[in-house]
Amino acid sequence: MKVILSGCNGKMGRVLVKLITQEKDIEIIAGIDINANKFKNPFPVYKNACECKEKADVIIDFSHHSALLEILKYSLDTKTPLVVATTGLSGEDLKNLTEASKQIPIFQTGNMSLGVNVLTDLAKKAATSLKDFDIEIIEKHHNEKVDAPSGTAYLIANSINEAFQNEKEFIYGRYGRSEKRKNKEIGIHAIRGGSIVGEHTVIFAGPDEIIEIKHTALSKDIFALGAIKAAKFLKSKQNGFYNMNDMLK
Amino acid sequence: MKVILSGCNGKMGRVLVKLITQEKDIEIIAGIDINANKFKNPFPVYKNACECKEKADVIIDFSHHSALLEILKYSLDTKTPLVVATTGLSGEDLKNLTEASKQIPIFQTGNMSLGVNVLTDLAKKAATSLKDFDIEIIEKHHNEKVDAPSGTAYLIANSINEAFQNEKEFIYGRYGRSEKRKNKEIGIHAIRGGSIVGEHTVIFAGPDEIIEIKHTALSKDIFALGAIKAAKFLKSKQNGFYNMNDMLK
Amino acid sequence: MKVILSGCNGKMGRVLVKLITQEKDIEIIAGIDINANKFKNPFPVYKNACECKEKADVIIDFSHHSALLEILKYSLDTKTPLVVATTGLSGEDLKNLTEASKQIPIFQTGNMSLGVNVLTDLAKKAATSLKDFDIEIIEKHHNEKVDAPSGTAYLIANSINEAFQNEKEFIYGRYGRSEKRKNKEIGIHAIRGGSIVGEHTVIFAGPDEIIEIKHTALSKDIFALGAIKAAKFLKSKQNGFYNMNDMLK
Amino acid sequence: MKVILSGCNGKMGRVLVKLITQEKDIEIIAGIDINANKFKNPFPVYKNACECKEKADVIIDFSHHSALLEILKYSLDTKTPLVVATTGLSGEDLKNLTEASKQIPIFQTGNMSLGVNVLTDLAKKAATSLKDFDIEIIEKHHNEKVDAPSGTAYLIANSINEAFQNEKEFIYGRYGRSEKRKNKEIGIHAIRGGSIVGEHTVIFAGPDEIIEIKHTALSKDIFALGAIKAAKFLKSKQNGFYNMNDMLK
Repeated sequence: MKVILSGCNGKMGRVLVKLITQEKDIEIIAGIDINANKFKNPFPVYKNACECKEKADVIIDFSHHSALLEILKYSLDTKTPLVVATTGLSGEDLKNLTEASKQIPIFQTGNMSLGVNVLTDLAKKAATSLKDFDIEIIEKHHNEKVDAPSGTAYLIANSINEAFQNEKEFIYGRYGRSEKRKNKEIGIHAIRGGSIVGEHTVIFAGPDEIIEIKHTALSKDIFALGAIKAAKFLKSKQNGFYNMNDMLK
Repeated sequence: MKVILSGCNGKMGRVLVKLITQEKDIEIIAGIDINANKFKNPFPVYKNACECKEKADVIIDFSHHSALLEILKYSLDTKTPLVVATTGLSGEDLKNLTEASKQIPIFQTGNMSLGVNVLTDLAKKAATSLKDFDIEIIEKHHNEKVDAPSGTAYLIANSINEAFQNEKEFIYGRYGRSEKRKNKEIGIHAIRGGSIVGEHTVIFAGPDEIIEIKHTALSKDIFALGAIKAAKFLKSKQNGFYNMNDMLK
Repeated sequence: MKVILSGCNGKMGRVLVKLITQEKDIEIIAGIDINANKFKNPFPVYKNACECKEKADVIIDFSHHSALLEILKYSLDTKTPLVVATTGLSGEDLKNLTEASKQIPIFQTGNMSLGVNVLTDLAKKAATSLKDFDIEIIEKHHNEKVDAPSGTAYLIANSINEAFQNEKEFIYGRYGRSEKRKNKEIGIHAIRGGSIVGEHTVIFAGPDEIIEIKHTALSKDIFALGAIKAAKFLKSKQNGFYNMNDMLK
Repeated sequence: MKVILSGCNGKMGRVLVKLITQEKDIEIIAGIDINANKFKNPFPVYKNACECKEKADVIIDFSHHSALLEILKYSLDTKTPLVVATTGLSGEDLKNLTEASKQIPIFQTGNMSLGVNVLTDLAKKAATSLKDFDIEIIEKHHNEKVDAPSGTAYLIANSINEAFQNEKEFIYGRYGRSEKRKNKEIGIHAIRGGSIVGEHTVIFAGPDEIIEIKHTALSKDIFALGAIKAAKFLKSKQNGFYNMNDMLK
């Protein structure tokens, strides 16, 4: 399988180059990056998508949401399936992608980790079965992380909340409270320490039993691996807008 | 809701009597037990189902699989929905129940705990999404338990195995092995200690990420609570054969 | 061993009566309780300690801190070792106990659970060895608990803080924070849900490794068991003021 | 601080070179390695210790136990403190080191990870306080690991066993057993899956309470970090034989 990698010289791009080099049935035939000469690559790197002459099976975009339109135009022009792995997309961006997916297969997700998507999916399913159970989310990250709680914790919490018609209320700490827990609360707790890569646990606590679902990330490679998996998935698909749920089915 | 409790003077029967007494919208109107006079109950207790003159909304059977036919006959004669909570049923028993379910609603499960059923369900779903991940099951129980691994661990393992066309192989300990793990293994580990009520964890370990699903039982009440829930569920159902999956939908 | 049980008709007193009845080498020969006739007991129960004519090996006090002086006087008069298991003692109370311990052996602790004391001890020791690691405490309790964080979480946090000359700072939630974690923080997180009896975890997260120490309570019996253990410990001791650390040595 | 690194071109040696380069107050002034030219290093590398002309504050030996005598001779000749981080030392080797430690400070350990040593230490301490509790050890490693259980699991189990005059018995799996757990058992369980770096949990399960102590390794860097820490510790020490316990005090 031949891939064009947009954002090949960025942080996640480097991880992808490293990982794809180790695989047999997939190769990068061209890169696109605003810093085209930052690294020495075994494939041509172009500053703009429009300069690219190679024909790939799939384009993986790990650049920046501001570069989306350019990449999308190139994908449409060359009828190449597109995996969008950038974060921070606007509603307008999503609308453009949906529209374009009538002409090419497009894959998009807010979190490229296979495991986090499985966790979210399982948590939503558990919430439906355990309607009266109390729900709490604990996330753990390294001591350099500046925001709290994590974006992924919100992703999970919002997804669970959908199962309750968004009637749940997020609670972020209970310091000094002197009242009983309400069932409509979802407690979210941000643990920080050392070099923890990332851990998310969803707890469902009911009468005399507890269900816990936990995801542990051991390295940032999982986001690159998720993108590779998505590219392989997308290659043989018909035009349409796909996400992790379609891939996990 | 009016209930006839078969096995009311047994171990789980006592828990049910205690818990139903605390609820408002459900009451026991009669009991059936081979030791009819063992305990003082606020309802009549009969030695045989056929002596019972009361008319209930649902019958809960927590007696013994050897008493199944008698209870089933009574349920059919009186057209009363039946919750079967005994374990150790034979294939013939299940066939009889299926046949009878054409005339009355019947609910049957190998484990009355809501949570264990949710765990099994989630694990099967996770297995489908994480096909290449290595699967291990850890179960923990008190130091009085004589069998290992637990029946529930097998229930979970078999359920996961179905998602792989039963091609997985169970491994029960790795002492002295000097070979790499094969992907087709499902490791099952039995921890014993203190007064642990029951804990089952399914681990899915893949490249740089791990998903864990865990169920913790805090008391044996959960099996009684599951039976009560099943009774409420069954009351308004049409004839048919139901299990936990139907209730959790 | 013969025991006088002060507070025998209170909540924890009932647990002690139940547990001591099951043991062979220890028996209750008399009880003291302000509600002397509340329950039928297989031993005489007196309203006031001074009425008590029996001679015991140890007195266990699980009544109320307001009754301490009366019990202490009786212990001194009869030269009987005293286990003080009530909470909420004042500084004056502790001074009185210390003074009295010159004449009789006295055992006192803020938490009768053997395990919580071991946890506290281990956490303090770990903190000394892992000076640069980030420390976080997670406690979990049932949804009826009105205060947060738990008193035991504070007990543990304060004990760890002693190892740092009290230079650590407690942080109770990180919602909306946008700054890196400081090493001097101790994060304390209160999870609430279902019927969780009590769980306390101390996390030490450092560069590429994590140490976790966790205590799980399965029932309130552990506080009674701790008091029985303390009574047995105290029986053969010389005059002096003892606590859990002495017993765990 | 100036360091001579023996085994600088081996697997762990490379990690040390990488990590020491990032630190300010420590530098490698010379290397010793049987494959002296395998990598380009910013310091001279000698095939044999005797060729080395540089004078260091400490020597770190991460080569191979077969090279111990040569390194030890060089350390004695130049009166340089020595950190021995190789595994597989014989009793004779340890005798030689002990003897040599009368003339120079020597540090030796079977596991350079700070955390594993703290875990072992805490587990031993917990075992002493919780004498009647049931003890189980769970270790988790990646699916490439060929031996089971891990050497570290044995290290921990043996260390705990010392607290019981070696009267405990190791049990490696409970498949098909139909008997109650004996208190003298220590259960050891080897979980294998994905790319788990290394996890060791010691469980103490007693009547209605559980203490768990867990160590998680996030990368192999921790062994290199432990050696650097040991070198700094050893620099200012008097002649003597030191191990992790001395450093953790």
